[in-house]
Parts: sequence; C-alpha cells; structure tokens
Amino acid sequence: MLHPDRLFPSDPTQRDIARRLYAEVGHLPIISPHGHTDPSWFAKNEAFPNPAALFVVPDHYAFRMLYSQGVALESLGVPRTDGGAVESDPRKIWRQLAQNWHLFRGTPTRMWLDHAFETVFGVTERLSGASADRIFDQIDACLQKPEFLPRALFERFNIELLATTESPLDTLEHHRAIRESGWKGRVITAFRPDPVVDPEFEGFQANVERLGALSGENTGTWAGYLAALRNRRQYFKEVGGATSTDHGHATATTADLSDADAERLFEKALRGTITAAEAEIFRGQMLTEMAKMSLDDGLVMQIHPGSFRNHNPGVFERFGRDKGADIPTGTEYVRALKPLLDRVGNERDLTIILFTLDETSYARELAPLAGHYPALRVGPAWWFHDSPEGMRRYREMITETAGFYNTVGFNDDTRAFCSIPARHDVARRVDCAFLARLVAEHRLEEDEAAEVAVDLAYTLAKKAYKL
Amino acid sequence: MLHPDRLFPSDPTQRDIARRLYAEVGHLPIISPHGHTDPSWFAKNEAFPNPAALFVVPDHYAFRMLYSQGVALESLGVPRTDGGAVESDPRKIWRQLAQNWHLFRGTPTRMWLDHAFETVFGVTERLSGASADRIFDQIDACLQKPEFLPRALFERFNIELLATTESPLDTLEHHRAIRESGWKGRVITAFRPDPVVDPEFEGFQANVERLGALSGENTGTWAGYLAALRNRRQYFKEVGGATSTDHGHATATTADLSDADAERLFEKALRGTITAAEAEIFRGQMLTEMAKMSLDDGLVMQIHPGSFRNHNPGVFERFGRDKGADIPTGTEYVRALKPLLDRVGNERDLTIILFTLDETSYARELAPLAGHYPALRVGPAWWFHDSPEGMRRYREMITETAGFYNTVGFNDDTRAFCSIPARHDVARRVDCAFLARLVAEHRLEEDEAAEVAVDLAYTLAKKAYKL
Amino acid sequence: MLHPDRLFPSDPTQRDIARRLYAEVGHLPIISPHGHTDPSWFAKNEAFPNPAALFVVPDHYAFRMLYSQGVALESLGVPRTDGGAVESDPRKIWRQLAQNWHLFRGTPTRMWLDHAFETVFGVTERLSGASADRIFDQIDACLQKPEFLPRALFERFNIELLATTESPLDTLEHHRAIRESGWKGRVITAFRPDPVVDPEFEGFQANVERLGALSGENTGTWAGYLAALRNRRQYFKEVGGATSTDHGHATATTADLSDADAERLFEKALRGTITAAEAEIFRGQMLTEMAKMSLDDGLVMQIHPGSFRNHNPGVFERFGRDKGADIPTGTEYVRALKPLLDRVGNERDLTIILFTLDETSYARELAPLAGHYPALRVGPAWWFHDSPEGMRRYREMITETAGFYNTVGFNDDTRAFCSIPARHDVARRVDCAFLARLVAEHRLEEDEAAEVAVDLAYTLAKKAYKL
Repeated sequence: MLHPDRLFPSDPTQRDIARRLYAEVGHLPIISPHGHTDPSWFAKNEAFPNPAALFVVPDHYAFRMLYSQGVALESLGVPRTDGGAVESDPRKIWRQLAQNWHLFRGTPTRMWLDHAFETVFGVTERLSGASADRIFDQIDACLQKPEFLPRALFERFNIELLATTESPLDTLEHHRAIRESGWKGRVITAFRPDPVVDPEFEGFQANVERLGALSGENTGTWAGYLAALRNRRQYFKEVGGATSTDHGHATATTADLSDADAERLFEKALRGTITAAEAEIFRGQMLTEMAKMSLDDGLVMQIHPGSFRNHNPGVFERFGRDKGADIPTGTEYVRALKPLLDRVGNERDLTIILFTLDETSYARELAPLAGHYPALRVGPAWWFHDSPEGMRRYREMITETAGFYNTVGFNDDTRAFCSIPARHDVARRVDCAFLARLVAEHRLEEDEAAEVAVDLAYTLAKKAYKL
Repeated sequence: MLHPDRLFPSDPTQRDIARRLYAEVGHLPIISPHGHTDPSWFAKNEAFPNPAALFVVPDHYAFRMLYSQGVALESLGVPRTDGGAVESDPRKIWRQLAQNWHLFRGTPTRMWLDHAFETVFGVTERLSGASADRIFDQIDACLQKPEFLPRALFERFNIELLATTESPLDTLEHHRAIRESGWKGRVITAFRPDPVVDPEFEGFQANVERLGALSGENTGTWAGYLAALRNRRQYFKEVGGATSTDHGHATATTADLSDADAERLFEKALRGTITAAEAEIFRGQMLTEMAKMSLDDGLVMQIHPGSFRNHNPGVFERFGRDKGADIPTGTEYVRALKPLLDRVGNERDLTIILFTLDETSYARELAPLAGHYPALRVGPAWWFHDSPEGMRRYREMITETAGFYNTVGFNDDTRAFCSIPARHDVARRVDCAFLARLVAEHRLEEDEAAEVAVDLAYTLAKKAYKL
Repeated sequence: MLHPDRLFPSDPTQRDIARRLYAEVGHLPIISPHGHTDPSWFAKNEAFPNPAALFVVPDHYAFRMLYSQGVALESLGVPRTDGGAVESDPRKIWRQLAQNWHLFRGTPTRMWLDHAFETVFGVTERLSGASADRIFDQIDACLQKPEFLPRALFERFNIELLATTESPLDTLEHHRAIRESGWKGRVITAFRPDPVVDPEFEGFQANVERLGALSGENTGTWAGYLAALRNRRQYFKEVGGATSTDHGHATATTADLSDADAERLFEKALRGTITAAEAEIFRGQMLTEMAKMSLDDGLVMQIHPGSFRNHNPGVFERFGRDKGADIPTGTEYVRALKPLLDRVGNERDLTIILFTLDETSYARELAPLAGHYPALRVGPAWWFHDSPEGMRRYREMITETAGFYNTVGFNDDTRAFCSIPARHDVARRVDCAFLARLVAEHRLEEDEAAEVAVDLAYTLAKKAYKL
C-alpha cells in the first residue's frame, strides 16, 4: 500500500530531487517535542488491548468523520460521560471503520492508518468490509506479542525524544516511574497550565486550591499564586524533564496589566465573579506572566490559540471533551500579541512558538512577526492543517517572509501512538517535496536544500525546544 | 478551440491518469440541482431570439467585465429600470463583446463561452473584432432551427435533472405547464423564501400578505405565517417537484429564539418598525424555522451567505438587481451557525448544504464543521469561485478534513443555459485533475479515484439533494 | 548562480512555453511606477559608499531577518535615533550578512541579492562566511568605477521610467536638479500626502502649516487646506512629473462627509483634539477629497492600506520608522471603500489602484470590486507578497474574476536600487510561468499568452499610470 515515492511530486525532475533529499532524512530519529500521548503507556508498558482501542476509540480524527456521516459514537465505543452502555465488542467497532473506509479517501487519517497498518503490523491489503476481520485478527495477534508493547514500539519507531503534556495538577507519577524504571527511552512532559490560568476552565477555583496544596504556596493571593506556578514549573523541569510550556487559549489575546490590576482580576476569578471579558484579559495576562517566568527558568512557550472547544453541546454533554467537536475560528495575532511583545518580544533568550488554526495568518501575520521579533518562532502546521496540503501551504506562505529558520521543525501533536512515525514521515516527505520544487525551479541549490531538509526533520526541533 | 486535454495537468503521469478518470465521467448525465435558469424556456419552448440575448444581455459575468473597463451597460442592451432607451441592435452588442474578448483571457467566462460556441453552435474560430459578424451570423442561424429550441438543447446537453429557483410567491405555472406538456425533461423548482423571510427585502409586508393569500393562511400572525410557509413548501414539493430550499442571506447568522421573542420580531417586521439588527436576528431565526420544517418535510436546505448585494447604488438605481455589483464579504460560520446547530446539527436525516464566497472558511470552518456535524455538507465552489483555480483550491482545502463524502458534487448556479454543459465539464475535469494528482503522488489508488470521480460528477448530487 | 530557467516550472511542457514567453519580455525596458528610491542619487550621481551601505544598512528586508535571529541592529550599522554609536566598519556589517546567509534560503531577498551580485557586480560564488571578504572587495572595487555611478546603473538597468515618492512638503529639489542637469534618465515623483492628511502623523499641525507656506494658501481653513493640496499636486505634476498619488493608511476606510462635517474634523485635527475614531474618518474623507481632485487633475490614485506601522516600540524608539517592524493586518475593502465608490466608482476617467497586504482579499474582495467598478484596478502583489509564491497566488486568485486587464503590471516598491532589475525579472518570470501553465493546460492559446506577457511586463503599467 505504501509507495516509496508517496507524497513526492510526479514531475520526474522534482521527484528525483525529492528522493535524494528524503534519503538524507527518512531514517533520522524522531524528535516529538509536542503531543498528547499517555505517559502511563511507557510507565506500565502494558499491551494495547485490541485494534479498536488502539485506532478508533481514542482517535477523534477517526470517529469524527464517521460521526459526520451518521455513525453513532456509541456504536464506536466512545465512552459516555454518564457511564451508559456503548459498544464493547472491538470487532464490531472495527467493522464500522472498515465499512466506511471510503470516507477517509484523500485525508491524512487514511494515510496515517495505512502507514501504521503496513509498517507496524505488516498489513498488505486495503481495509474494507471484506478485509475487516482478517486485518483485525492480524493486528490483534500482534498486540499480544512483546515486540508490540509500548516501549518496544517506541524504540522501533526510532523516537529519540517524546514530550507529553500535563496539567500543573498532575503529579507526574508516570514520568517519575519511567525514569525510575531504568528504561532508556526519553519521555518528558510539558507544562500545560490551562486548568489553573483560565478562570472559565471547569473547576478553576478547586484547581487553584489544589495548585496551592501541591506547591505548598498560598494560592489565595496573587503573589502566592504566581509563586505556586513558578514552583510547579520547576517541578516539571526537574521531575518531568520539561523544556516547554503549552497554552491552549481560545484567542491570542495577551495583556500586560499592572500588578494591582492583575491581582484584582485574580481575586474576581477566585470568587467566581469574573466576567467573560475579564476572563479573557486574565488569560492574556497569564501568557505574559508565563513569558516572564520563562525568562527566568528558560522554558520555551507554545501558544496554541483559535479553537472553539466543545462546539457541539449535545456531544459534549454525552461524551465530554476532545470528541471531534472543536472548530477553528479566525484568529488575530498582530494586535492580540502586542502587549506581550511590547514586554518581551525583543528578548533573544526567550522562545515563544506560535501556532495557528487560521491559515490566513501565515503570510499576513505570523511570518512577518516571526521574521522580525527575536523571541518569536512559528510552530508547524497544526491539527486540521497537519496534512500534506496543509503543510505545503504552510511552507509556501511562511518561507518567503520568515525563512526556514524561524520555524521549528515538526510537531505530531497526536494522541495516537502509532501515528507518530506516519506523521513525521509525511512531514519529511512534504518538506522534501517543497524543497525539491525550489531546487528544480533554481530557487535554491541542492546542497543547501539537503541541509535545510535535515534541519526541518531533526535539528530545528531540538534547538527550538532546547532538547 | 477546445483541446481534449484542457484543464488536465501537463505532467504526463498526471495527465494520463486524468484522461482515464475523465473517460469514466465525461459522458455522465448532468444533475443540476441548483441554478437560476428560467422555467418558461422549457414551458414555452420558444427560440432564443439572438446571440446577444442569449450570451450577453442576461449574463452578469459577461457584462460586468466589460463594464469594469468602461463599456456602458446601455450599450450592451442591459434594460434600464426606467425603461429608457438602450442598445437594441444585437449585432452591435455582440461586437462589443468581440472587440473586448481579450479582457476575458484566463477567466471561466471565456472558457464557458468558447465551449458553448464550439460544442453547441459549431464555431471553430476565435471571437474577435474581425470574426464577430461571422460568428454572430452562425449562432443566429442556428437559433432559428428546431434543434436549438430549449427542450432540444436540454436533451442534447444530456441533462437528467435541472432545478430552477422560485420565490414562495411564484405560482409555479411554468413548472406546471412543463409537467402537463408531456415532455419528459425533468425540471424542478427550489423554494427560495428570501422575499418573505427577510424583513429588509423590497416589499416584505406586501410579500407576506401575498403569501397569506396564496396559502389561505392568516400571515398576520406568527403561527399563521409559519403555517403559510409550510403550506407553500408542500406546494413546491407537489407541484414543482422541489427537494430543496435555498437561502441567500447577507451573513450566516442563525438564531434560536423563544416563540414569544420570534413572534415579537415578526410583528415588528410586519409593522416596519424592525431595526437592522433585529432584522438580522429574524432572518437567522427563519433559518432555524426552515430547518425545523425540513425535519418534517424532508426538504434539503441550502445556505448561500456572504454577498453584499447591490454594492453600486448608481448601477442599482439605473439597472436594478443582479447586474454584476454583488461583492463577497468575509463570512464567519462557527459562531453564526451555532444556534441552528445546537438545535438540529446532530440530526442524521437533515441535510444542510453550506456555501461560501469566503474561501478562507473552507479549511478553517466549513470542512471542520461538515467533518463533524451529521446534518452538514459543504456545497461546491460558488459563483466567483466556480472556476478552475477556485475548484482546485476548494478540493485542496476541504478534502483533508471533510473528505469527499461531506461534499455534494457540483452546482452550476447559472442563469446562462448554454453554460450548463460547459460548467459541468469544467468541474469534472478539475476534479479529475485533482484526483490524478493524488493518484500520481500515491495518496489514493486509481480504482478508488475512479469511484470518487463518478461520485463527484453524478452520485453525490443525486444523494445529497434526494433526487 | 543564476540559472536561465530559474522560476520556470520544471515540467518540460510548461518550461518550454515559459521560455518562449520570457524571450518576448525579458529584455523589455523597466517601467517602475511606484517605489522609494532616493532621487538625490540621480541628482548628485555620487558613488555608493560601500557594499554594506548599498545592500544591508538601508534594506529592512535584509536586516529584519538578521534581527529576528538575534543579530543586534546596532551591529548592522542601522543608525540610532539618538545618534549613539553603531557599527561603522562596513566589512564587519557585511560579514554578519554573509555568516547568516542560510537564513535567507527560500526568500526573495536571497534571490534579489544573488541577482544583483552576479548581474551587476559579476560575483560568481555564493556568499558565506568564507567568501564574505572576497565578495565585499569585489563589489567595493566596482563601486569606485564610473560605470557603477547611479546614472550609469540606471541606464544599464534599462529603466525607461522610475517614480520616487515624496511628501507634499518636499521641495522636489532633486527632481528639479535631475531635469536641469540635462541627463535624459526619466525620474518622476509621486505625491504622498500622508504627513499632511493623517492627523496622527508625527507633527501633523506643523506639517499643515508648512503646507500653507509652500503653497501660499491659508491652511488654517478647510477651503485653504484643500486649495493648498491642489496647489501642491499641480506643483508635483509640473516640477516632478508626477502622474500619481500614493496613500499609506492603516485601513481602507473612506468617508464622504458633508463639507461642514469635514471642516469640523479638520479644525479638531488642527487643534489636536481629534479622537482616534475621528482621525480614521478624516483620513477616509481625505481619500475621497483626493479622488475628487484626481477627477480634475488626472493623477492616478494608489491606496496602500493594511500595515500596522512601528509595531515594536523598542525598535521604533531606538531606530525610528521603516526598520522591519511594520506588520500586515486583516483588511476589509467592501464596506470600507463604499463611501468613496458611491461617489466616484463609476468614473471611467479616474484610476484608483488598490493594494493589499491581506491576500484573503484578492479573490474575495479586490477582484470582484475591480471586475465591476470602472474606476478600480488591482495593484500587484505588494511588500511581503512581492515574491514568487506571492505573485503566483496573486495571479491564481485575481485573474479568474478580474482578468489580466484590471491589473496594472508590476511595481517594485523598493528602496534598494540594485534590486530593481532583480524584482522586475522575478515578476516577469513568475508571470510567464503562470501563463505557461494556462497554455499547457489549454486554458489560453500561446499567441494570446505572449500578448498578455508583454502587457504585464510593460504596457499595462504605462497605461495605468498614464506614462
């Protein structure tokens, strides 16, 4: 199923160049500095239970498409928030995927799954209603074997480093366990403070209280709250190996309030009297606070704005968060980031990586910003745009203004472990294809393109994330 | 003039694949589920009067370009609202088109007209000042012949189904006449209620009164008004064969008011005291009302937002609506559609087809929405984007998130009868070209691409529009 | 370094067509109707001092990229506003560029500099840390020779016409000196009234006073202010050969106030009591005033909106304007231009050229507007988008709705003299590549494409700018 020239241009001149460039990068170790895999997999190293549990139930890319065409989430085994019954037979779940396989034509999900089926599990026929059971059985049989345990796959995937993402309220027990186990796989955490810096997050007040307990600081005061965050950042660095923070706000709004004003908003947030507009400013202020802390502790900041989370209340009530109902929105950066940039934009030792779900910002806002401010870099094509066309547009719209070196290589951002090699391979191929066009059109010489290809596949991520 | 490989990639690998895919779809019957042709053509079956009346006077694509370069609309025979004199010699009008033919280089209008000239009228030389009269005479001579009457052309164009668009105030006399004539051509209507659901439409109050008279309901009350709309929908289904409604609002705003609030706005609208902001909410409410009615009667909803109609007051006063002065605007969907989607988005038996004039919404909003909500589909590239580059961008930006099967095939949306085969042919070729690239880059296998090509050219439109 | 096929498609069919088209236009004289070169260069005809002063210090494209990666502007010799010390050794500055040459891979800056190095100075090796001194010496040696003086280069660059941009407060002494020198190079000015029509411009009140002094009008009154502007426009036409005006507003807002309202705002502006919102309306009113004056005196209007100027206060305070910290923002045209268009949009003898930094407006707003209004044309891809990918997107998104003939050829918009031939060459090549694709895909015949290529490279600019 996997052609060696996949994703390369079909023009022979470009294809030959792309092949040569890819030969330099296809085998490089994977640096995965941002993602959402579960550290307990590597701490416990238990077998993945079955093909449906591995590929369907946890992957919102997969089940959102099925849902969009009328397949009930219950029938796909997606757990209900009320604990009500959902399909529990993995084979039946798998068949739904197989029978609707045509829906995924032309999507990256199809490409990632085909890649995992073939390269990880040795599947050589196309998924369909007819082949569903055979492929299920083949994958299922593999999963029982030691060489398909999480750590074995991690090594086989040639992962040099994998970052997960945890809340400040997480004890990092799995990361601690991994370290203590003696296993040499490098799994680190990233500090994702949304639950304790977003006054509109479910359980904000309780979260802040818990933050105080974990850090031994009095989070009932603004100063104590900041100290607690500093404390947990330090803990994440020491225990979880964190080199970065991650911020998933609805917008890119930042603020630079006086201490007194920030304190006032914090008190309102704690009392639950903060308005929506004030909460937006508070979140913006916290980005600036995080940036100031990064100046001290060196953590790289990642800002992931622009998703309208839980857009479908029916799905949210029945199934909870992260069920494929997050929808991108137009995102403005130039005015929104100004308070933050006025404060720290010229710092050379700070790295703030900006992501977007709004591709119109690439050439108009992000590349011009990152092509000027020393503190800014542009993160890779993200989420819905983590795809061949999305990555191509990203390079076409970013490079001419920001160059390659204000970008940071690839993030897979995935919850689906087996998609990691597939996603990195797609990124490497698409970048090689892009570079091959530049070379074929005499806009870049091939020796330079080869250097860039390695930087995009490996070096830039290590450097940007201080790995 | 028409090369058999037109619109196919010039790369030989891709071109060969595109040729094979097109061989499967080029000859398929035309399903035209959305457009603005005149049903009286098929009811009366009278000869089109002359080349200018067929190709220039009614086609805002054609005369807007000439106008933009200083050609007066009067000189093109466009009727004045005050009945004042305009050019009446079709040959003189035709010569203006011919002498300015270079303006259309690179535009779809040029491609559609060339296609009609050659395939319908056998013209084999390029239009120009020099050839103007010869081509005029050739087309004019054809138009007198029986095989160029509307029904004959309909059959020759291999149209399996053609939908027109009528207001609820239309008696559908032409559709009735077509049915009663015994002619087997399938021409159906679509229900376009803008004149009776938009408080800012010219003559809204009188329109609502007329709606009452036609339906036998008391449209002076909110309940009677809704009943009248239900009644006319039923009439459109029964007499006009309608399977869909169509909504041309300035924005995608929807609302889900209480009955009491909706009633209050309706009363203000009737009294003419509704504000612009309230009118916007009322239109939004009516989309939700229409969706609820669709749940009962099964009509497919089409939402066509985002055009700033009649942008040029000078042209509007002198020549009226639809004179090439409608300009697209930025259109937000994620927040705008939420009230409607909260109400009906999870309905599997409802189909709402979203169109846009704002291409930035493809990858950012429409594909993520349609790739999640069971009730949503994305309509094809529309109006200014119904063009080779527009269609290519559409597929590149929609497919990776929504797949092919959350789209609905092609709509020609035309008032220009002879452009129908040309437009469908362009769409089929561009889709084959897109698919050929996927195949050539090993992102889709050719047997799958062939299935998709047929679905895009024929099957999806029939299914989405319940034809 | 410069391949003869650079920027042409690598597909042999398209490449051959592109070569043939380029053969018709590569050698045509340069029309540069909009830019920011310094007229004193041609008035005084003094040698450029050294390679750094020519290529680095004044070029914000070059130093912004270096700054974004942590190179201090002081170390690049960029003058400080406080007159403090900055690097003064041109060789050290040059080495910074050379050592960071990889940052420019894939950018137009790299392409322009390579073009200038090779075609103007005969450099044949790639810039790098190792070659820095050799190339510095080679260019430096050239600069001492008479054939590298500004006028000689102007002639060698085959420039038929070059427009600079001056404020109404400029005396045009250099333009006068050029004319009086007897040199036959055609250097004209353009009228850029921002300092006297934008109440938020530094020194607005003093500027308006100086405008009065220069024109002999009483600019303390609205009528006198307008008369003064008319007077200076006439002066720019007569003394500077101006055929156009240029307007660099933050947005595309226009207004069409009553005389009394305009006068009231003007008085507030003079007194310094105008609010930000009123200043925005006043600027918009001044665009309409300028358009009305253009109806009388025939000057072509250029509107360049959408840049957030001086986004970085730290850089602005230390180094002043135009230091690479201007960032594009989303720009709305359809509503913003309506007051102006309602007034003059249907005028056939007026030409208003619209530019954008927001590519989303190409297909959605600018092409539909210019494809309808006789007074409108779309300016070429601008600033951050003056690049191969930017130009390609421009043609792909503009042409299908506006055609080629509602565009105006190429503007280089540069401050960097040696980049002029490079930039025009890039534009010609990208346009030939775009046309070659249309021809190869049988969307345009080659004889027509050849005509278009010449029009885009030469004729349209002369016609649109009345040269």
